[in-house]
Amino acid sequence: MKKTGIEIDVKRLGKDLLALGEFGKNTENHGVTRQAFTNEDTAAKHWLIEQFKKIDVHARIDEAGNVIARYGPKDGPCVATGSHIDSVPSGGMFDGTLGVLTGLECLRVIKEKKIELKRPIEVIAFADEEGRFGGMFGVEAICGQLNPEFIESAADIRGNTLVDAMKSQGLEPLNALAARRDPDSFHSFVEVHIEQGPVLEASKNTIGVVNGISGVFKWMVKLIGKAGHAGTSPMNMRSDAFQGVADFAHEKYRIIEEDGSESSRLTIGRVELKPGFPHTIPGEVEFSLVGRDINNETMEQLAMSCRKVLSTIARKHKLMFEYRQLSWLKPQPCHEDIVNKFKKHAENLDLKYQVMPSGAGHDTQFMCQVTRGGMIFVPSVDGISHAPDEHTHWDDIEKGGDLLLHTIIDLCNE
Amino acid sequence: MKKTGIEIDVKRLGKDLLALGEFGKNTENHGVTRQAFTNEDTAAKHWLIEQFKKIDVHARIDEAGNVIARYGPKDGPCVATGSHIDSVPSGGMFDGTLGVLTGLECLRVIKEKKIELKRPIEVIAFADEEGRFGGMFGVEAICGQLNPEFIESAADIRGNTLVDAMKSQGLEPLNALAARRDPDSFHSFVEVHIEQGPVLEASKNTIGVVNGISGVFKWMVKLIGKAGHAGTSPMNMRSDAFQGVADFAHEKYRIIEEDGSESSRLTIGRVELKPGFPHTIPGEVEFSLVGRDINNETMEQLAMSCRKVLSTIARKHKLMFEYRQLSWLKPQPCHEDIVNKFKKHAENLDLKYQVMPSGAGHDTQFMCQVTRGGMIFVPSVDGISHAPDEHTHWDDIEKGGDLLLHTIIDLCNE
Repeated sequence: MKKTGIEIDVKRLGKDLLALGEFGKNTENHGVTRQAFTNEDTAAKHWLIEQFKKIDVHARIDEAGNVIARYGPKDGPCVATGSHIDSVPSGGMFDGTLGVLTGLECLRVIKEKKIELKRPIEVIAFADEEGRFGGMFGVEAICGQLNPEFIESAADIRGNTLVDAMKSQGLEPLNALAARRDPDSFHSFVEVHIEQGPVLEASKNTIGVVNGISGVFKWMVKLIGKAGHAGTSPMNMRSDAFQGVADFAHEKYRIIEEDGSESSRLTIGRVELKPGFPHTIPGEVEFSLVGRDINNETMEQLAMSCRKVLSTIARKHKLMFEYRQLSWLKPQPCHEDIVNKFKKHAENLDLKYQVMPSGAGHDTQFMCQVTRGGMIFVPSVDGISHAPDEHTHWDDIEKGGDLLLHTIIDLCNE
Repeated sequence: MKKTGIEIDVKRLGKDLLALGEFGKNTENHGVTRQAFTNEDTAAKHWLIEQFKKIDVHARIDEAGNVIARYGPKDGPCVATGSHIDSVPSGGMFDGTLGVLTGLECLRVIKEKKIELKRPIEVIAFADEEGRFGGMFGVEAICGQLNPEFIESAADIRGNTLVDAMKSQGLEPLNALAARRDPDSFHSFVEVHIEQGPVLEASKNTIGVVNGISGVFKWMVKLIGKAGHAGTSPMNMRSDAFQGVADFAHEKYRIIEEDGSESSRLTIGRVELKPGFPHTIPGEVEFSLVGRDINNETMEQLAMSCRKVLSTIARKHKLMFEYRQLSWLKPQPCHEDIVNKFKKHAENLDLKYQVMPSGAGHDTQFMCQVTRGGMIFVPSVDGISHAPDEHTHWDDIEKGGDLLLHTIIDLCNE
């Protein structure tokens, strides 16, 4: 990496990451459990506000529980950066926190180096990115995508309501609607996040410049055949529901080769057989099918091909085939300007990078709907995330931080 | 069918089947729940003994709970016939009962027609053929295959012990060992049973002459990969455990084509995925594999081929492969003499028959180990069994009954 004199202090950033990692730390497995709108989450927010206070930057918690720090010129659209500090149960210490604390570190360097800015910077820790209550609450609030019905009906997997959780942290739930921001108050949005996948590690690139966030559809598929004695039914006289899902899983790769792209994913994560006895031919199977691609038309092609292949397989095995589409989230491209900015500074800094889609959802995908947005990835060791052994090497964090810093300064003075 | 003047009365047999079907009948679904060593089972046994008494045939319950009726010359090895009258939960009214009540009907005809016999006939209702306590208790007792350890440790799926169940029905559990019979006390054994599968119905044959009972092996297989985010892991960088079992299931048919026979069966009846979330690549799968064939060498070839294919697939998907063999029951051929006897009489009676293996276990498989044994099938409507809508047409029952009757008379006068 080229030295420019304008660099983050990765030791300082590392200390922050470790300190934030103490909030909700599990003593047994050293994972982090800091779900949105819990006491641990709120304590972490207050700690974060303290860190901004230490460098004389004002930070506040908005009506939706987002932490927003603002620095620089008082007026005009801001260059925003950030991510989230809530976690999944037993998650890791880098997911989300890296984007927020790198934003803090960038402000520190900009202040120390007395870098002049034409427009203000905001560092945002978005509330409930991990979707404890089913969405990306904080960023949806800022982007004006919340409605009262959702707020009043949302509940987590254990049945705790969003309303109760927010109230327990001193927030008035319906006030979250007031967190909406005028899109014109943003000049642009940039985020750094761990990859949470194995691609960068395998390609030996330090930076992934994200060109878009994959869309995702989720189906529950049912194949209904005929349960029967595994001994008395010859192989060619069966209506074996499991054989249906197995044959379909076998065809997944061909479907992607024929109708998908390099960013396509088809995943069968849940499978329930009935009756589920070793000596009985499965009469029914229900399984989840999650499809992803960076292009909405490709998603549609994949979905059509899955339907066709499932119908054919069902016919072959004398099965009834039905499915429900539980959700269809369109892909969200990142803004070309931001992608190009990241690429330019990566080249300037001599960083090894690749352009790649994000297979997971991120705050950026909502921010892209209100302003020019984009994000970068740094490598995840072994591709692991959402687990206690989530890890990213400090030198990768340093490189990602420097790239973010240079890009922010550029955007602020565009 | 040719009329010979020596025929069963199918109306009388039908009445018996319906009467026996009342014991343990479920009022909602009209299925039969008459598990071994319950009050319903014992009441049915006493009813059965009454039916023999009505025709002046002595019947008793032996030490293992088998009902044994004996008729004809006092001494010498007997021609035995029979099956069982216990049922699975919510089973049908033909499974087992047909073999016992056809035996009763044969005795009635032989007595009415005053047919002379060189040797005695026994009609046996074997206890717990359905394996409530894990084996075929009654026939194993008669064949000397029980041991005290089994008797004292066996329990049903709800944890009720065999010892308690037998005691509750007035039986002294360890006395069951005394039910063992001298093999020389048998001349031969024949059984009629419903097919419990779709083969005869599809081939439009009335009779299946069973040439042997398939052997069966049962494995629990584990494939261990790596759980991961379904969005961030490209298809070619996954260790998807479900893909492993799916690819194996897909190869099952080829394995049978290459290394099996027409009687081969490979069934995956139970599949458990971990963690089992729609958005997570399955990191682990455990599944049951049940293999069957009429030939032990073919079973060994099938098992070897399954191991090889599973290893190859595991390697391909970067999975760990392990398996436990829970059981290996060798196939049991029926005795050639009995098979030929059934074939001869089927031809004499102008019955459409086919020689076929039994994929399910039956009392005959144990009796074949102590005497010359064999069995015949009659068609099951839609191949359904172990369910309330188990059914066999009366005219098929009549033909099967006549074939059994002629074969018994032949064996008695050989």
